[in-house]
Amino acid sequence: MRPSGRTAQQIRPVTITRNFTKHAEGSVLIEFGETKVLCNASVETGVPRFMKGQGKGWVTAEYSMLPRATHTRSQREAARGKQGGRTLEIQRLIARSLRASIDLKALGENTITVDCDVIQADGGTRTASITGACVALVDALNWMRKQGLVKTNPLKGMVAAISVGIYDGEPVADLEYVEDSAAETDMNVVMTEAGQFIEIQGTAEGEAFSYDEMTQLVDIARVSIRELIDIQRSALNS
Amino acid sequence: MRPSGRTAQQIRPVTITRNFTKHAEGSVLIEFGETKVLCNASVETGVPRFMKGQGKGWVTAEYSMLPRATHTRSQREAARGKQGGRTLEIQRLIARSLRASIDLKALGENTITVDCDVIQADGGTRTASITGACVALVDALNWMRKQGLVKTNPLKGMVAAISVGIYDGEPVADLEYVEDSAAETDMNVVMTEAGQFIEIQGTAEGEAFSYDEMTQLVDIARVSIRELIDIQRSALNS
Amino acid sequence: MRPSGRTAQQIRPVTITRNFTKHAEGSVLIEFGETKVLCNASVETGVPRFMKGQGKGWVTAEYSMLPRATHTRSQREAARGKQGGRTLEIQRLIARSLRASIDLKALGENTITVDCDVIQADGGTRTASITGACVALVDALNWMRKQGLVKTNPLKGMVAAISVGIYDGEPVADLEYVEDSAAETDMNVVMTEAGQFIEIQGTAEGEAFSYDEMTQLVDIARVSIRELIDIQRSALNS
Amino acid sequence: MRPSGRTAQQIRPVTITRNFTKHAEGSVLIEFGETKVLCNASVETGVPRFMKGQGKGWVTAEYSMLPRATHTRSQREAARGKQGGRTLEIQRLIARSLRASIDLKALGENTITVDCDVIQADGGTRTASITGACVALVDALNWMRKQGLVKTNPLKGMVAAISVGIYDGEPVADLEYVEDSAAETDMNVVMTEAGQFIEIQGTAEGEAFSYDEMTQLVDIARVSIRELIDIQRSALNS
Amino acid sequence: MRPSGRTAQQIRPVTITRNFTKHAEGSVLIEFGETKVLCNASVETGVPRFMKGQGKGWVTAEYSMLPRATHTRSQREAARGKQGGRTLEIQRLIARSLRASIDLKALGENTITVDCDVIQADGGTRTASITGACVALVDALNWMRKQGLVKTNPLKGMVAAISVGIYDGEPVADLEYVEDSAAETDMNVVMTEAGQFIEIQGTAEGEAFSYDEMTQLVDIARVSIRELIDIQRSALNS
Amino acid sequence: MRPSGRTAQQIRPVTITRNFTKHAEGSVLIEFGETKVLCNASVETGVPRFMKGQGKGWVTAEYSMLPRATHTRSQREAARGKQGGRTLEIQRLIARSLRASIDLKALGENTITVDCDVIQADGGTRTASITGACVALVDALNWMRKQGLVKTNPLKGMVAAISVGIYDGEPVADLEYVEDSAAETDMNVVMTEAGQFIEIQGTAEGEAFSYDEMTQLVDIARVSIRELIDIQRSALNS
Repeated sequence: MRPSGRTAQQIRPVTITRNFTKHAEGSVLIEFGETKVLCNASVETGVPRFMKGQGKGWVTAEYSMLPRATHTRSQREAARGKQGGRTLEIQRLIARSLRASIDLKALGENTITVDCDVIQADGGTRTASITGACVALVDALNWMRKQGLVKTNPLKGMVAAISVGIYDGEPVADLEYVEDSAAETDMNVVMTEAGQFIEIQGTAEGEAFSYDEMTQLVDIARVSIRELIDIQRSALNS
Repeated sequence: MRPSGRTAQQIRPVTITRNFTKHAEGSVLIEFGETKVLCNASVETGVPRFMKGQGKGWVTAEYSMLPRATHTRSQREAARGKQGGRTLEIQRLIARSLRASIDLKALGENTITVDCDVIQADGGTRTASITGACVALVDALNWMRKQGLVKTNPLKGMVAAISVGIYDGEPVADLEYVEDSAAETDMNVVMTEAGQFIEIQGTAEGEAFSYDEMTQLVDIARVSIRELIDIQRSALNS
Repeated sequence: MRPSGRTAQQIRPVTITRNFTKHAEGSVLIEFGETKVLCNASVETGVPRFMKGQGKGWVTAEYSMLPRATHTRSQREAARGKQGGRTLEIQRLIARSLRASIDLKALGENTITVDCDVIQADGGTRTASITGACVALVDALNWMRKQGLVKTNPLKGMVAAISVGIYDGEPVADLEYVEDSAAETDMNVVMTEAGQFIEIQGTAEGEAFSYDEMTQLVDIARVSIRELIDIQRSALNS
Repeated sequence: MRPSGRTAQQIRPVTITRNFTKHAEGSVLIEFGETKVLCNASVETGVPRFMKGQGKGWVTAEYSMLPRATHTRSQREAARGKQGGRTLEIQRLIARSLRASIDLKALGENTITVDCDVIQADGGTRTASITGACVALVDALNWMRKQGLVKTNPLKGMVAAISVGIYDGEPVADLEYVEDSAAETDMNVVMTEAGQFIEIQGTAEGEAFSYDEMTQLVDIARVSIRELIDIQRSALNS
Repeated sequence: MRPSGRTAQQIRPVTITRNFTKHAEGSVLIEFGETKVLCNASVETGVPRFMKGQGKGWVTAEYSMLPRATHTRSQREAARGKQGGRTLEIQRLIARSLRASIDLKALGENTITVDCDVIQADGGTRTASITGACVALVDALNWMRKQGLVKTNPLKGMVAAISVGIYDGEPVADLEYVEDSAAETDMNVVMTEAGQFIEIQGTAEGEAFSYDEMTQLVDIARVSIRELIDIQRSALNS
Repeated sequence: MRPSGRTAQQIRPVTITRNFTKHAEGSVLIEFGETKVLCNASVETGVPRFMKGQGKGWVTAEYSMLPRATHTRSQREAARGKQGGRTLEIQRLIARSLRASIDLKALGENTITVDCDVIQADGGTRTASITGACVALVDALNWMRKQGLVKTNPLKGMVAAISVGIYDGEPVADLEYVEDSAAETDMNVVMTEAGQFIEIQGTAEGEAFSYDEMTQLVDIARVSIRELIDIQRSALNS
């Protein structure tokens, strides 16, 4: 039995609020239960130096937790003077996932930066970030089309992500904090609308996991991500 | 005529949402029109090294703008590796203002840190931060009393802040961004419930200002701050 | 009675030594009693990136205390790897004050940086810095005119600054360290030769201050700044 | 056909040189073909602050590429003033992998740090690092047993890692640089001697990958890691 | 013929002003011609961590140039966020030289930090720093004896330093900036009152130098340093 | 008697392995007994900003110790976020020494960076670095000539370096760690093939040293450096 009473495959209620702030070209508040992440997509002309002259665009991401998004206050990274390893690891994952959903040629020499700021954390902040960021990205692309900045739609398809894990001996989807901190194995899966994988990151927190456990985890992740993509599509159509 | 149609002394609609996030001992979303700041107060036992052994507590603050709180994206300070001068100046102002509202002796050897994170900016972020932070601080103090961490109420009275300025030749209250960027003079006033001043910071952006202008600005600030303190009190009573 | 035996409105003896060092285009050692600040103005062609292409110049300032300018040694900011909040706040104040005295158009695309290095501190280092920096700035402008770098005089008028405060219940001017550390309220006022204000920064250190105290403080600041501007003018004429 | 003429499942020649340097408690030079990593394990008494008082030890890792380990010189991270995201991500992976092979209780309040410095890079530096680091760790543990620092062997079993990927449409093991930079999918697998997984990190570089491709990649990884563990065991027995 | 008209062995006029600032336990302004360095010695109880429990004291030094000590303004190291290699090299040299003049046992567990801040530079700032710092150190030691912090005099003897170089084919003493920047070889020599060497640092700027040139340079350095030690002794006796 | 049984003038066995890694234009592993340094020379087109437009090239160096090159592990400088003073001092010395061996005009607007990474330390790491770096530099120059990047040979002659010191009252050459840490005086000498000096850096670690000791140290350094240059020449000819 899960702490929340959810079934093993049941994800938390997901809410996607578009246009959450007014300045960003795409602005989404995504909630996976009590996990809340603000995803703002910003469009800028030009590309970073290492991309110049290739006729292609760039998509990148930054991630941060507000200091009191968690049970106890964590030090502000700006005050510490550097971003931690976990932060860098997560923002690299978000950025790779988003780039996999975009035809960079069709984007032209423009850069989209998606800022994922965790307002409240209760497990699954990186997967909520990816799922919300993709919606913000689509809104930013739509804005670009209206502005005439792109001619064809650079989107190859939606991308969403879920965390799955072995909790109390059983594979479960969308772990909340109390489950995550007790889980023996934790896996984050990023998948496309077409059912192909972008990233699979499985980590043994305590005991190593078996081949069977791995395939079970991937299996439930696929189901959950399909649900998430439906929710993304509904939000975009509303 | 002000861009918003407001009268010279009219402040924007102010909304105070308590318990905006669930982990912080005090958590307030304050809105001054389109300016939105999340103020989270965190209680920690112990005090910074320079305060040790004095039998007194400490109140401090941190301030940050989310990168896309503004019209164009600004670089994330954590990524740049340091907080800018404006950020440090503002968080020092918030912290001094909050400390002026608290009897540090009565707080005991505990520290309260108030994080003010600007979700959306439209002028007046520092005054909204102070006004919201004071409410979050009160909620944190109430939490401490329930926990038995303090015996008497350390609060000396509410504190609120407003920006005033000379816009188009006339003194106006609570400048929004379009007014602020065109204002000749900008003043931030922090006042107590008892009508005494904590901080007055007047700055000539373009032309220097006269003695008369100064007193006019202070006068309208006093009226606005009394309104803000009523709004704080209503929020705390609801 | 003030510790120094001065009357409430009496400022400390002020000495301005021009050409204190030989390389800077303007170099002034200013002394407010035992507070000694070296103000060096450096002229450089070109402007910072954010000012480019506007046909205007730029004036900026940096401030630092030598490690042993104070009673106990403070850590060198270069060794710590960053400038503190107080330093950044003060150098931003000095820079704003100087820019208010200059017609940036008339300056052309040139930058003047005024370095204010506190050799010895005894209260009022920021106001001494502004007062000395303005003289160094004038010397740098005169140098520019001799070099043919500017055609018309960019100076709009002298600017000077004083600290005033409530000490032992009475408003006094030009607080020295022992007064400053005991003062209930501390105000720094920057004023032009024309008697207009550039900055007013009043801070309650202990008790909040009243409207009447505020006006009394501003009143004595005006008298003191007029004295300081006379001293600046005498120094420039000698 | 692979550039090296290897078969799909064939790993590069692996060489493990123990006692490569003389000061470290465990010192291994591992070579995966032209990839060469020096893995030095250092034993220190005590644990980091967050582990204190738990009666457990700690294992951590640091990773770095020498500036000219690669085709073109990359900037030295010490000179840049920070470690990059890729570096932090890799050293976190190495550390997690090593901790999974150790009973931290049996280690006592001691810390082992394994430094993985890449002397020459030709693809697979993180998997070579993990594989070599595990051998260095075992040597350090043996040293501790001789010194009487541990009573029972904290090692739960060997751990090794391999990179696998889809190259030219076919799953291949142990990608070298030319394959890695052309691969559509890249997966790093860390496995225990008992055939359980510690980490699976699959990333779509170009096209997303299918479920079948995932299982094929994991399958060849398992075979390769068993070979690597045999090589580790041989090296330890010699 | 030297630019200044000095003979080859003639040093510039040297002025030592003690008690230049009022807070430091030892405060010396030293002038070698137009080179002016403020040397402040600060006494603190306790020693750095690596010296604890040895019953010995510590002497260290910091060096900095004010940004406009030179012909063109150099960036402030505190603003850049780090001290440059030249700065670190010089302050390590000053500190080693001072430690060589002190019996650290006799100093007890106290630390003396000498801050050498270059007010104006015209060549020889490191040698002026050492020569001035030694006088400030003696004043600080005398203050310690009056305070009863040391029982016996920790001073082993005075230490002074001079730069010598091959200018226009001829060995000359105490190079000023125009000579220094044209010199083929530059040597800094630190010597004790007893005529023994603490440091000899000879550097070929252009052409390498011969054995004979080396001994000629050392010979004139010895004569100059004896003169400097006489000047130090006179300053201390006045 | 020296710990190793060497005579006073006897240097340790020196081994120079060229082409130690495959990417660098010059790659040398140099061993002075148990001290092992990898010296990689990288050729890049263009010069640093301060050298632009002079028609000259640039040679620079970076130095680092692997964390466990020493008896106890030292903190990784990249993790600390800055290079230490000792590191900066040594890399500046290596760079100056190499530049003295090169005609920068003949190098054209190209930059050679030599990375000296200490794999294992046993005294004399800076002198081994200079001696090995010069060989790597020659290999890089030869590569440039083959590529047609330079027309004439920019090399003015070989440069090598040795440490000498007073150990147990006697001048000895090429100190290993146990000697170095006990030595009263330590001198590093850099000399050209033509027998001229590039750098002489003598430091009194304990007692100051006499004129006679200085000349004795320089004398044995000259002999050792001639030996080293023979070894460099042999390595280049093999």
